[in-house]
Amino acid sequence: MKIALLGHGTVGRGVDDIIRDRVPGIEVSRILELPDRLSDPRMTADYSDIVNDPSIELVVECMGGIEPAHTFICQALMAHKHVVTSNKAVVAAHFDEFARLARQADVAFLIEASVGGGIPWIASLDKIRRIDDVMSFSGIMNGTTNYIIDSMRREGLDFDIALGRAQELGYAERDPSADIDGIDVANKTIISACVAFDVDCVRDLPVTGIRTLTKADLDLFASRGLTVKLFGRGVRRDGRYAVAVEPVAIPSVSLEASVPSNFNLVSCEGFTVGPLKFYGQGAGSLPTGNAIVQDVIDVSQGRRQTYDFSKGYEYDPSLLTSDYVIRTRSLNVRCDAWGPNAWCVHNYSAQQARQLFERVVKEDASAFMAALSQEG
Amino acid sequence: MKIALLGHGTVGRGVDDIIRDRVPGIEVSRILELPDRLSDPRMTADYSDIVNDPSIELVVECMGGIEPAHTFICQALMAHKHVVTSNKAVVAAHFDEFARLARQADVAFLIEASVGGGIPWIASLDKIRRIDDVMSFSGIMNGTTNYIIDSMRREGLDFDIALGRAQELGYAERDPSADIDGIDVANKTIISACVAFDVDCVRDLPVTGIRTLTKADLDLFASRGLTVKLFGRGVRRDGRYAVAVEPVAIPSVSLEASVPSNFNLVSCEGFTVGPLKFYGQGAGSLPTGNAIVQDVIDVSQGRRQTYDFSKGYEYDPSLLTSDYVIRTRSLNVRCDAWGPNAWCVHNYSAQQARQLFERVVKEDASAFMAALSQEG
Repeated sequence: MKIALLGHGTVGRGVDDIIRDRVPGIEVSRILELPDRLSDPRMTADYSDIVNDPSIELVVECMGGIEPAHTFICQALMAHKHVVTSNKAVVAAHFDEFARLARQADVAFLIEASVGGGIPWIASLDKIRRIDDVMSFSGIMNGTTNYIIDSMRREGLDFDIALGRAQELGYAERDPSADIDGIDVANKTIISACVAFDVDCVRDLPVTGIRTLTKADLDLFASRGLTVKLFGRGVRRDGRYAVAVEPVAIPSVSLEASVPSNFNLVSCEGFTVGPLKFYGQGAGSLPTGNAIVQDVIDVSQGRRQTYDFSKGYEYDPSLLTSDYVIRTRSLNVRCDAWGPNAWCVHNYSAQQARQLFERVVKEDASAFMAALSQEG
Repeated sequence: MKIALLGHGTVGRGVDDIIRDRVPGIEVSRILELPDRLSDPRMTADYSDIVNDPSIELVVECMGGIEPAHTFICQALMAHKHVVTSNKAVVAAHFDEFARLARQADVAFLIEASVGGGIPWIASLDKIRRIDDVMSFSGIMNGTTNYIIDSMRREGLDFDIALGRAQELGYAERDPSADIDGIDVANKTIISACVAFDVDCVRDLPVTGIRTLTKADLDLFASRGLTVKLFGRGVRRDGRYAVAVEPVAIPSVSLEASVPSNFNLVSCEGFTVGPLKFYGQGAGSLPTGNAIVQDVIDVSQGRRQTYDFSKGYEYDPSLLTSDYVIRTRSLNVRCDAWGPNAWCVHNYSAQQARQLFERVVKEDASAFMAALSQEG
């Protein structure tokens, strides 16, 4: 089977290397690159060389960003080519459109690499749903923020020092906002909800990051047998669903608390299979490349998975309710004292908590908020 | 597709319920049961009613034990019926024979439920191997012993009290030997090695259980930041492999140390995908039933997985080497003092350690031994 790569950065090179070294029967015959980077005879800067080439059966999109990735994916699907992508931003923004085009063209649209890197997360959700309704999912979906929190906790580093190290190691971008403000996790949470719950998930979910987390916050939680991790979460009940991204305080003895360095751990629960958790490298050239190549092999073996979000489950933020701890000098929050300048509000939905927190940060930009996990 | 169940105990009833309630297009048309238990019109005590019925395409074996399960599986495969089994004892004993018969008959032989209950472990190993060599695997593969250790550690129970509770909860059999002496984990380790390493794994691997573990042992390890879990392990290098079952002392902050109650956590490492870990219910009617039904659905969708162990990798116990702690009053071990009556021997293979331990227990039946994990 001949395939084309759109993009030859970290992920694209991983795919190219894995297929060349390890997957007989599949050939990367064209690569879309920028005009000033055409260093390989397979490369072209003209997408029509790929989308109009009938010998290319499958397009791997690993350019990142919304445009032109969105347009290129649509064109590939309309040209009856299977599409495999690692681009969480474009999938989160246009999943329903891509799924519809894939169904119309009777081709596969596969997205394993968009969430959890090498972890077989999307494929596992797909598989669980053959038997079970997925009742909930949650997890550590961003390695950069896990690395930062883990370094702060185990080595006592300040947030900025830990972030600087993550940047040195290549885990964090020079502009780390997408990671530390929860945007990356929001995209992965939207995609996971689409797959797990069969819904065209809302895009304006409550999202809170860890930008203002301090060593003192971690110490306060530790004194209560808890630690904090940035979670994406979703729950479904009675034809309704809710999603959120926020720091969650979890027991220090839990599996999630033990996740080291830049690893991910994602969980889901099905009725018959019970709780399942999946751990691995959530990013990187070879793990993400591996996930893409698994999708490509699936297509080459006849898998025609696509998605259908026509069930119309209703978004209901009240399904995701917790107690929240807010650490702030603002006088806006004065309820149950929980620690020095820390207060606990009870039974807030993630959306209500986010609205409260937005009022707080207007007065105190250094405020921090975390949900208290129910097991905590 | 019409299928037959051999056995209608805990697992068989789970399969029957899941298929009836959740899987359109598949019908349990016959069930093999004992002559005095024929309570359902689909039931028969005569296997020839099943193996000679051409309408039955697939046989699910969930009787347990070696015979007659072994004979029935062979007969089903020779009759060109796909076979799905949860029976780890018979697979560990006869995997190569079953795989050969399945290849000859061009039918599927699937064993997801034989290791890790509802955890998609075998399917994940199969999938990883499409791209990567699996370099190693390890994990907590027995929920009963994890429950016992977890209760001893978190609640300070004595071994016998914790075992009694596990028996009350139905986690442990009245004769708990298969669990606490590591025999169940040995079967799962053999099967995992066959799948992960493409070998007809040896049956006489070193196996040490947790029967003699005491609260004082756990306290001693805890004082060094460690805890003990019963592990099945395998490693492959340069065309050779080794396997072992033994207590392993691991850092208290590791994921494995955090596994609660009767859950399982199994890990593997592939070259491109990196380390992966899978967590879930390793036993029980619905999780194990779920794993069987996933295999059945795979077959109904055309999957024809079987196994081929003709590569002839060589068993080399020296590949799996650790330091070992032995707690004993025997005078046979007098090397590095590690604690009260506890000694540490260095760079022993699992097989050498087992041989040493067998000499020790002849003098001191209450002795305990654990490998020190390299991360420890």
